[in-house]
Amino acid sequence: MPTTLKDFETVFPTLVKDLKEHCEHYKLPDQALTWFEKSLYHNALGGKCNRGLSVVDTAQLLLQRDLSKDEFFRSATLGWMIELLQAFFLVSDDIMDSSKTRRGNPCWYLMPNVGMVAINDAFMLESSIYLLLKKYFRQEKYYVDLMELFHEVSFQTELGQACDLLTAPEDHVDLDNFSLEKYTFIVIYKTAYYSFYLPVALALHFSGFASEKNLKQAEDILIPMGEYFQVQDDYLDNFADPSTLGKIGTDIQDNKCSWLVNQALKRCDSSQRKVLEENYGRKDSTCEARVKKLFDELELEKVYKEYEEMRVKDLREKIAALDESEGLKKEVFEEFLRKIYKRTK
Amino acid sequence: MPTTLKDFETVFPTLVKDLKEHCEHYKLPDQALTWFEKSLYHNALGGKCNRGLSVVDTAQLLLQRDLSKDEFFRSATLGWMIELLQAFFLVSDDIMDSSKTRRGNPCWYLMPNVGMVAINDAFMLESSIYLLLKKYFRQEKYYVDLMELFHEVSFQTELGQACDLLTAPEDHVDLDNFSLEKYTFIVIYKTAYYSFYLPVALALHFSGFASEKNLKQAEDILIPMGEYFQVQDDYLDNFADPSTLGKIGTDIQDNKCSWLVNQALKRCDSSQRKVLEENYGRKDSTCEARVKKLFDELELEKVYKEYEEMRVKDLREKIAALDESEGLKKEVFEEFLRKIYKRTK
Repeated sequence: MPTTLKDFETVFPTLVKDLKEHCEHYKLPDQALTWFEKSLYHNALGGKCNRGLSVVDTAQLLLQRDLSKDEFFRSATLGWMIELLQAFFLVSDDIMDSSKTRRGNPCWYLMPNVGMVAINDAFMLESSIYLLLKKYFRQEKYYVDLMELFHEVSFQTELGQACDLLTAPEDHVDLDNFSLEKYTFIVIYKTAYYSFYLPVALALHFSGFASEKNLKQAEDILIPMGEYFQVQDDYLDNFADPSTLGKIGTDIQDNKCSWLVNQALKRCDSSQRKVLEENYGRKDSTCEARVKKLFDELELEKVYKEYEEMRVKDLREKIAALDESEGLKKEVFEEFLRKIYKRTK
Repeated sequence: MPTTLKDFETVFPTLVKDLKEHCEHYKLPDQALTWFEKSLYHNALGGKCNRGLSVVDTAQLLLQRDLSKDEFFRSATLGWMIELLQAFFLVSDDIMDSSKTRRGNPCWYLMPNVGMVAINDAFMLESSIYLLLKKYFRQEKYYVDLMELFHEVSFQTELGQACDLLTAPEDHVDLDNFSLEKYTFIVIYKTAYYSFYLPVALALHFSGFASEKNLKQAEDILIPMGEYFQVQDDYLDNFADPSTLGKIGTDIQDNKCSWLVNQALKRCDSSQRKVLEENYGRKDSTCEARVKKLFDELELEKVYKEYEEMRVKDLREKIAALDESEGLKKEVFEEFLRKIYKRTK
């Protein structure tokens, strides 16, 4: 049985208590302690926790049995570390992107009295990962591997974000700067490593199956899967029914280096290119409508559907060819793929 | 012979090359690679590098001999990691404090086209520490200790910064919020751990003398020494000759929770308290002059001199009582103290 969000969330207060105790040991003044706790709850809680949950579910699949109470707690703790890593990135991304809301609440930096203090709060969310790693995993032979994994995936995500910010600055439209190569780099580094590879890599370490071969096999499937997931995201931003998606897409107005605009650039003639030049990335709904019309003219919905079938076929072949001899299981990836194939939100 | 800044700086380009090679291995697009390099040079270079230099000097004192070329490079690399940690904090502190200049240049976030991208650049400076640690220290038995040390000192610095930001927000003067206890927490956590304890702890690991006892002895001397250093900083901000200090103090106008205002609050009568309430933390040179006059009335210069003598006497006693049996040397601390006692800038 997959873990429920509710079960997963029961672990969080214990981790907050651990972090607070560490601060109390340092005699951190009360005001700052309360602030830290508020930041932890506002920023790490309230999402769907798909990444965190998949650590627990993957561990269970790898061990091929129910987890003990302690195993559940420890694998969920690893899951919460991904949620903390994500919180660290989202708090700061929201500042860098001038976002307004996150998970239905105001972004942390827009909350009363927060402002740029949010930057330091983001750092503390990141530091929390390593405090919890030390507390719960110091005695494991794979402790160093976990630290290195978080360091490496953090840096990869930062490189993806750096490339994204340079490729599509909010205030400056330059379609020459876009390319499918850059697009691929951005989605793999900014999203795929921490969202797809990291949960499985953590579960592999936790369950004792983190051989070099298994980590490599997981990466070789999960990175293209993460890429597919992000392409889907970009497709849904424009083509999904907003009432199903739960939000109204803004990629065109936000000058995003999305899969759709890159496909359009690849396929457009010079007059269509002119339409893009004149309308993409403007905060204007008439311009946005003109770009949407162009996306339809270029049949990008069909292009996407073909991409999806090709990509999913490729992923299924890779999964079928997986070597299970060192304890990795095809089921892990089938489960990931099942959750995202033809999703509508 | 102590290391010169020039010698220390010769190591930096090699480290930048290592970091760039790591990015190239990931196929980071050129634009982002160039940006990262620019950030590394702008933010980590150009300071006095006292913290980084003291790793090399301390290693030499502990080993009681000249360092080999390789030992120089490796201890300097540890030193550069402190400089990178500091760069990570300064880039973000400057945003949080709305600072304008740093080391005679515009702050990084105020450079053309940077803005809030600086937040991600700060993250990449931090990540660089762990990339270099892995490249150069992975094979050492103290590798885990180095990672944990950087994690812990980073978190301590973030707690100090959190407390500072909450105690003295730029836009809201509330002297009731100040106290010598908070002051002490802030300076120890925000400055003393990374500036005083970290270089010596790194040198102890590097030279093979990082026993628990030695680390504890170092902490017990360096933390009060770092506190004294920061008190000095606050004293000099108001009482030093600006032409010697190299800058004009702004702590009063900036509403800083400084040692001087805390001493003033402890010693003032109700009418003097009113002067503080009405004039501290205002961006107004008449208000500032009124506070300066009060600091003179309360003889804070004399109070400082007494504090300094007492503190230095205490530090000298601690150094004299130091147990050198596990390879720690009194000279390490004498050298630190010599550099700061009665400094004027």
